[in-house]
Amino acid sequence: MPEHITSIKVRYAETDRMGVVYYANYLVYFEVARTELLRALGVSYRDMEETDGIYLMVAESNVKYISPLTYDDDISVHTTLGFVKNASLSFNYRIYREGKLAAEGMTVHVCTNRSRRPVRLPDRVRTCLES
Amino acid sequence: MPEHITSIKVRYAETDRMGVVYYANYLVYFEVARTELLRALGVSYRDMEETDGIYLMVAESNVKYISPLTYDDDISVHTTLGFVKNASLSFNYRIYREGKLAAEGMTVHVCTNRSRRPVRLPDRVRTCLES
Amino acid sequence: MPEHITSIKVRYAETDRMGVVYYANYLVYFEVARTELLRALGVSYRDMEETDGIYLMVAESNVKYISPLTYDDDISVHTTLGFVKNASLSFNYRIYREGKLAAEGMTVHVCTNRSRRPVRLPDRVRTCLES
Amino acid sequence: MPEHITSIKVRYAETDRMGVVYYANYLVYFEVARTELLRALGVSYRDMEETDGIYLMVAESNVKYISPLTYDDDISVHTTLGFVKNASLSFNYRIYREGKLAAEGMTVHVCTNRSRRPVRLPDRVRTCLES
Repeated sequence: MPEHITSIKVRYAETDRMGVVYYANYLVYFEVARTELLRALGVSYRDMEETDGIYLMVAESNVKYISPLTYDDDISVHTTLGFVKNASLSFNYRIYREGKLAAEGMTVHVCTNRSRRPVRLPDRVRTCLES
Repeated sequence: MPEHITSIKVRYAETDRMGVVYYANYLVYFEVARTELLRALGVSYRDMEETDGIYLMVAESNVKYISPLTYDDDISVHTTLGFVKNASLSFNYRIYREGKLAAEGMTVHVCTNRSRRPVRLPDRVRTCLES
Repeated sequence: MPEHITSIKVRYAETDRMGVVYYANYLVYFEVARTELLRALGVSYRDMEETDGIYLMVAESNVKYISPLTYDDDISVHTTLGFVKNASLSFNYRIYREGKLAAEGMTVHVCTNRSRRPVRLPDRVRTCLES
Repeated sequence: MPEHITSIKVRYAETDRMGVVYYANYLVYFEVARTELLRALGVSYRDMEETDGIYLMVAESNVKYISPLTYDDDISVHTTLGFVKNASLSFNYRIYREGKLAAEGMTVHVCTNRSRRPVRLPDRVRTCLES
């Protein structure tokens, strides 16, 4: 499975009084990385929402925090697709700083329409993901 | 002009590596206080959006940071209406901690419909605000 | 194991363009609930950090998103202690809205000193947690 | 006064249920842009904090919201230094999307030491800023 690498610089806003990145913000990094993996596969998630009315709602998230990150750190998020089913899919993420694994995690998503009803992943999207 | 007081406890998430509340989060406190002032005046902002399709888009914000806030602080946001015009209105805020002024600011809002076009403030809302 | 219930009102800031609470913010709700559970057990986490120099760094987080939340929703976070070991502990969370389970999750924490070295949980804290 | 341009792609996390970027997040964009302007002038703000123990605490912020931003927008933050005094300085910001002004604002900062006492801006920093 090909891996996509997204570079992010940690913002001051993302740190907390412990001096490190607040734990919820890793999920924001995952979101940025997921958008970029999809784009690299030919899928604009913004268009999926705005044109197709298709949403990837998050059903589950998991993060293992291995080594803390702080302000102005340059991090790389390595992202791969996990499973792709009829109406759901998952992503796996590993965050590196200076070549060292700092965190890893995954998210599971359900494909829904504007009314938040589960629907099949559009064929066009499926084709891109399976390429 | 009557003043509404909203109590908020500072969350860990809202602090940054300087050990104090990150400056953008004061605007979140203002938002919470504004929702509660409106509710106290008989206006559910959620209903305004969901039922009337009316939005109060922010046109301007200003904050003066006087004394820092940190995790687990109990703060009070004192909120008053500023001006109320045909299609816009403003709010004034003062944040106190232990009786001491910690910040003050204001926001200006434009009343729009779902297409983000300026519209008159609904009469029902205007009546509540002028009561 | 006694359960602590924390009430939270969803803020506008916590929603995203899907119209629901952004998935990372559930971890913020967990943080608020965890602080309140500790306080109910006689432990001020702020004092732990400021007086004892003891930090509960997050080592793992997991969230299952069951039913979406939105602006102005009143939610209850039901929190229990999971395991308590020498230098680590865990919490379990269930979020309810109108009596219906909306999400559940857990966090694992490692007890560290100011230099982020693992240390034993202070006896005073352990006593409170085991009470 | 030279202007620094920072490119940012809007994250999903930064939007709200109105479908646009939540108003507090413009201050986060300003922070990112300010860090990059300082870096372009030869000042690492992270080093200022970590090595010199010097902090630029925010004393005031102002934002004028002109045209909304949304998910996946590519924006440019044009940043210039405002005034530079003994113990304070200011920045001016303009945010553009597709060549069109979307917001503008400013921040004022006080230079402090680790105890949050106002101190003179370090000579090395002053020299960089006045270059």
